[in-house]
Amino acid sequence: MIQLSRAEIEQLVTVDDEAVAAVRDAYIAIVDGRGNVPPVGHIAFPATNGDCHIKYGHIAGDPIFAVKIAAGFYDNPAKGLPSSTGIILAISAETGEVRAILNDEGYLTDLRTGIGGAVATLALARADARSVLVIGTGIQARYQSRALAALAGRPLSFRMWGRSLEKTEAIAAELKRDGLDVSVASDLEAACREAHIIITTTPSTEPLVQSEWVQPGAHITAMGADGPGKQELETALVARANVRVADMKTQSLGHGEFSHACAAGLIGSGDCIELGSVLAGTLQGRRSNEDITIADLTGVATQDIAMARTVLERATTKQDGRS
Amino acid sequence: MIQLSRAEIEQLVTVDDEAVAAVRDAYIAIVDGRGNVPPVGHIAFPATNGDCHIKYGHIAGDPIFAVKIAAGFYDNPAKGLPSSTGIILAISAETGEVRAILNDEGYLTDLRTGIGGAVATLALARADARSVLVIGTGIQARYQSRALAALAGRPLSFRMWGRSLEKTEAIAAELKRDGLDVSVASDLEAACREAHIIITTTPSTEPLVQSEWVQPGAHITAMGADGPGKQELETALVARANVRVADMKTQSLGHGEFSHACAAGLIGSGDCIELGSVLAGTLQGRRSNEDITIADLTGVATQDIAMARTVLERATTKQDGRS
Repeated sequence: MIQLSRAEIEQLVTVDDEAVAAVRDAYIAIVDGRGNVPPVGHIAFPATNGDCHIKYGHIAGDPIFAVKIAAGFYDNPAKGLPSSTGIILAISAETGEVRAILNDEGYLTDLRTGIGGAVATLALARADARSVLVIGTGIQARYQSRALAALAGRPLSFRMWGRSLEKTEAIAAELKRDGLDVSVASDLEAACREAHIIITTTPSTEPLVQSEWVQPGAHITAMGADGPGKQELETALVARANVRVADMKTQSLGHGEFSHACAAGLIGSGDCIELGSVLAGTLQGRRSNEDITIADLTGVATQDIAMARTVLERATTKQDGRS
Repeated sequence: MIQLSRAEIEQLVTVDDEAVAAVRDAYIAIVDGRGNVPPVGHIAFPATNGDCHIKYGHIAGDPIFAVKIAAGFYDNPAKGLPSSTGIILAISAETGEVRAILNDEGYLTDLRTGIGGAVATLALARADARSVLVIGTGIQARYQSRALAALAGRPLSFRMWGRSLEKTEAIAAELKRDGLDVSVASDLEAACREAHIIITTTPSTEPLVQSEWVQPGAHITAMGADGPGKQELETALVARANVRVADMKTQSLGHGEFSHACAAGLIGSGDCIELGSVLAGTLQGRRSNEDITIADLTGVATQDIAMARTVLERATTKQDGRS
C-alpha cells in the first residue's frame, strides 16, 4: 500500500497534460455510461459547526475506484487549522485491496476543480476571449486563474474582484508573481461589463452577477454553488443564457447554480447539457459569437478517481525506478 | 495521525470489558437519539464480482466519527486473497482531522459482530439456557461462539452444524482447542429441537431453520441476513416468535431476517423492538420462559464507531506511555 502526504502528491501531479487528460476523460465518463457515481454521502456535526461529504465512484475499466472523505469544520480557522480537510483512498476495483492512502488535505480536489474549470472555460468561451474576471479571493480563485492561464495557449489578462480590497490585492500580487497578467477590479459591475470570461468562485448565497452586466458573447464558469442555498448568478442570467452546461445535470439542477432557475420553472432538464458531451464532441456547446454560455460545475467523483489514478500510476512508476 | 495494522489492532482490542461496554452503548445510541447513522453507501463491481459498502456515522458527544469501507470481491479466494477487505478511518468530530487509519482488514467488524451477537443472545435467552447450536462454519461461527463463551458467565455446550462435515469438524476442533465444550451436530433438525440457543451465521438465501423444529423458550440470534435475498429462518418462525428484536428496525425490516415476514404482511414495525431499548431497560425483551425470542442483527455504524474509539483511546494511552 502506498501512502502519500500532500507535499509528495504536489510533487507528483500539477496542471500537467496527463492530469488534464484525466479530468477531461472524467467528464466524458459521466455521459458515456462508464461512470458509476452513487449519491454523495453526508453527515453533519451541528454541535461543532462541521460537516463531512463522502464522494465515491468507479469508472468502468479503471483498475481502481476512489473514496474521498472531505470535511469542513468552520470554527477551525479560529484554532489555527484549515477549515477543509480531505483524504482519498484508492482501492483496487479487482480485489478490493486498498492500494493507496492519499493524505492530500484537499489538494487534489482543489487541483481537479481548477483544471475542470479551465477545461470548461476553454471549451465554451469564444476563441478570441482575452479578458478574464475572477470573482472571489479564496483558494479556487487561485487555482482557476493558474489553470486557465496554463491551459489557454494564448495570453489572457486577468482582473480580480473580491469584497475585501486587501484580499483582492493580495491575490493579485500572488498571481502576478506567478507570471500572470493581473490587475484589481474595484467595481464589480464595470468589470463584468468588460469581461469576455467571468469565473465565480465564492460561497455566496446571494447573486453577485446581474444579467444586464453581462455582454453578449461572454462565457461564465460558475464554481461556487455546490450545495443548497448557494448562488452567484442572478437567476435571470441563467435563464437568459443561450447555452447551459453542467458537469452533472442532476447535481447542477438539484443543488448547483442552475437549481434556482430550475426551481423557478425558468429552465428544465432539457435546457441544459453536460460538459462531457461537449468535450466528446457529441453535443455542441457555443453556437455563435453572440451566445452567452454558462458552465456550472458542482464536482463529481469521477474527477477524484481520475486524480487518484494519475497519482497512483506516477507513484508506482517512481517506485519501480522507471522514472 | 495513528496508523495501525490488523496485528496491532488485534493486540489492542479483543472480547474485553471495555469493548463489550462500547458495543452495548453503540446499540443504546441507536435508540436514545445520540446515533447519527446516514444510509449505508454502496457501489457494485459486476465485472469483477465485487461490491463495496461504506458505513459511517457519529454518536453525539463522541470526539471522533468513523467511516468504514468494507469490500467483498468474491473471486479473491481463487487468487489466494481473502474475499473481504476493510479499513476504518477515525476522524475528529471537532476539527475533521483524520486521527487514525485502522487497517484492520475486517477484524473490528468481525469482533464487534461477535460481541454484538453474544450481547443480544445473553440479553434475550433464558438465564438457564445451556445448549447452543451454531449454524455455519465461517468466520462469524467462530466469533459468535468465542464471544458467547467468554461473556456467558456460565458453562455452555456448543454444537456446530454446517453443510460440509469436513468444515464442521474443523471448526469444532478449533473451538475445542480454545477450551470450548464443542461437538458436531450431524442432523440439523434434531440439533434445532434440542437447542436452547440457536445462532445462525450463514449467507443462506433459503431458510435453514424450520418453525416446528424450535422448542418453546428457545432464543435465536440471526446474524447472516444482512442484505436483500438472504434468509436463514423460515418466515413462519419469525411470525411465530413472541419477541422480535432488531439492532435497527429499518434495516432488519428492510433487508434483514425480519424483512421476509414483513414483506409477507405477517409482521409490521410495531411487532419488533430494538436491542438498545432492551439493553437500556426501557423495553422488556423476554417476558416468560416459554417465549421464543429472535434477535436479527444487520450491523450498524455506531458499532464501528465504538470499536474505532476504543482502539484509538488505547493506542493513544499506549503512545503516551500511560500503560
